[in-house]
Amino acid sequence: MTTQQLHEQILQKKSFLCVGLDPDLTKIPQHLLETEDPIFEFNKAIIDSTHDLTVGYKPNTAFFEAYGIKGWMSLQKTINYINENYPDIFTIADAKRGDIGNTSSMYAKAFFEDLNFDSVTVAPYMGKDSVEPFLAFENKHTIMLALTSNEGAFDFQTLNTNGKELYKQVLETSKTWKNSENLMYVVGATKAEYFTEIRKIVPDSFLLVPGIGAQGGSLSEVCKYGMNDKVGLLVNSARAIIYASKGTDFAEKAREEALKVQKEMAEIIGLKFQV
Amino acid sequence: MTTQQLHEQILQKKSFLCVGLDPDLTKIPQHLLETEDPIFEFNKAIIDSTHDLTVGYKPNTAFFEAYGIKGWMSLQKTINYINENYPDIFTIADAKRGDIGNTSSMYAKAFFEDLNFDSVTVAPYMGKDSVEPFLAFENKHTIMLALTSNEGAFDFQTLNTNGKELYKQVLETSKTWKNSENLMYVVGATKAEYFTEIRKIVPDSFLLVPGIGAQGGSLSEVCKYGMNDKVGLLVNSARAIIYASKGTDFAEKAREEALKVQKEMAEIIGLKFQV
Repeated sequence: MTTQQLHEQILQKKSFLCVGLDPDLTKIPQHLLETEDPIFEFNKAIIDSTHDLTVGYKPNTAFFEAYGIKGWMSLQKTINYINENYPDIFTIADAKRGDIGNTSSMYAKAFFEDLNFDSVTVAPYMGKDSVEPFLAFENKHTIMLALTSNEGAFDFQTLNTNGKELYKQVLETSKTWKNSENLMYVVGATKAEYFTEIRKIVPDSFLLVPGIGAQGGSLSEVCKYGMNDKVGLLVNSARAIIYASKGTDFAEKAREEALKVQKEMAEIIGLKFQV
Repeated sequence: MTTQQLHEQILQKKSFLCVGLDPDLTKIPQHLLETEDPIFEFNKAIIDSTHDLTVGYKPNTAFFEAYGIKGWMSLQKTINYINENYPDIFTIADAKRGDIGNTSSMYAKAFFEDLNFDSVTVAPYMGKDSVEPFLAFENKHTIMLALTSNEGAFDFQTLNTNGKELYKQVLETSKTWKNSENLMYVVGATKAEYFTEIRKIVPDSFLLVPGIGAQGGSLSEVCKYGMNDKVGLLVNSARAIIYASKGTDFAEKAREEALKVQKEMAEIIGLKFQV
């Protein structure tokens, strides 16, 4: 998928919502545990009930790997299900990968070729040659951590490095890498005031924004400081939507929560883009 | 496994070699491709032929994930094979994981519980709450990236942050985290002169050292500056050992290469520890 196609989908659906798929067997409705693949059944129901309100799904690989081979099979089935039934949806493997060049190439192969995700999240610590193998894939997107939504973000990401915070240095340096037009960035919603500075460095890039909902970030604040003239935001919500109910009505309740967010987004898009 | 047990194994085997398992279907002996699980058969043969010369095996998760579900099954079989047949061996899931707290908990569950590795590599960028969930596991070890062996290490890791390089700040900060005694660190062999400074910050920690062999690091230099009074080093070699031959003699040739390294290590240990 191209960023232009993603932008068009956002205007069409009046939504820049991405639903995080973090399936935890201790949290999903217990009646699903009787099915052969509870994780897939959970994801499938969430996807079917929210696909018209969202532009992206973001399976979090940890929540599949924790269940071993069965979990990896559920991940494969989930991405296949999205690609087959909702091919317009932007898919994100939230994997936070990154290693020396030949290893990153194998990770890129895993997520872009074997599983056929549109994008994957990566960590910047190992620098250029750990990220460029991902960037080499055409019409695939590499979403690099810049400023994350957790407390630990202040341990290293905001350290002063030669007069600027590390995350700003990460953003600036990454722009010099080969095929950097395939980069997007993770910027946490819990730090809305930072978006102004970030937009000075990466005015055109899509930003994946976690931290709305369970982590406490505000959608209107994020949009105020982070939106660009192509929207340029993908706002992720996981727990607040997928765990809206633990009962047999979980998919319906997930839709209700997604709809609340989508309505807020439609209003913001309407005001800004007159669509 | 405790670090004391690891230390004892090192003295007993006169080796601190760790063999990296990076199985690539385009590089493994082609006769193995006729077997049902070429990756597992390759790993098994390498393990059987080198286990008395090494104290650790480090499967690199990228090289399994690239083959999807089949790859993950090969990873599961590989770790099970080591744990069942060579329970004294220290196992490292080279996964470079790290995410917000509840996600890191799931990764820890994946590698420490489901797969039952002794250790896992993690990335520091997201800070304290992304690493502490791993540290909570007793007798499991979390090997955090400090200074890596690749070119990109100089993009961010060596940036000056408040008067010291970022990787030093990472080392210092990590020592304040809960259960930090379960931390080990990745320090690349291609940067031997840095070990002196690193040992001032983490005198007692085990360091996992990639970059010997194919990446050009020198064993004697690393030992000169990096060894502590408990050895404190795990030196990893992958390609130079596992791809020593592409023929049916690959396991034998891998043993020959591992033996060369082990002999050099035995000499160093003999000189320093009189064993």
